[in-house]
Amino acid sequence: MHINEFQNMMKRIYFHRDSERGTDGTLDWLVGEVEELREALNGNDIEAIENEFADVLAWLASLANVTNIDLEKAALSKYDNRCPKCGLSPCECPF
Amino acid sequence: MHINEFQNMMKRIYFHRDSERGTDGTLDWLVGEVEELREALNGNDIEAIENEFADVLAWLASLANVTNIDLEKAALSKYDNRCPKCGLSPCECPF
Repeated sequence: MHINEFQNMMKRIYFHRDSERGTDGTLDWLVGEVEELREALNGNDIEAIENEFADVLAWLASLANVTNIDLEKAALSKYDNRCPKCGLSPCECPF
Repeated sequence: MHINEFQNMMKRIYFHRDSERGTDGTLDWLVGEVEELREALNGNDIEAIENEFADVLAWLASLANVTNIDLEKAALSKYDNRCPKCGLSPCECPF
């Protein structure tokens, strides 16, 4: 599935809730989901880890919907088959 | 671009760096990028906001590469055109 198709699916399922909650509330949820991903990664339950990766992506898409950003367009504008800093793939940035 | 194509692009560009940094270090970067997204959203610079959305998605993909998770498969296993909790689209969960 394309990134923007996933974002649109999230809009169909959740935009009525996301838009009511607003940017700050949705961002707080995203932060909470990243912390849940950290907790899952401290364990060995692959299903739980996959579940939390799904949630982080879902809340990132929800936040993009609330803020009217096209996540796929934004991502591909910056990451176009090479590192945006050194211009190479693989990246050869000196750090 | 498909979610897994984006994840594979991140792997080609950054896996040599991501795998050296490891799970904890990559997760810390992801957390930092979410905070940068918060700062950008406090302003009005759309390009900066798009840039930070791109970075959060990129670091989430990097973390998925380091932990050997298929981000697209994980996301679509949980979010299959309806809310995984109430089973409806739009979601009608009572909260």
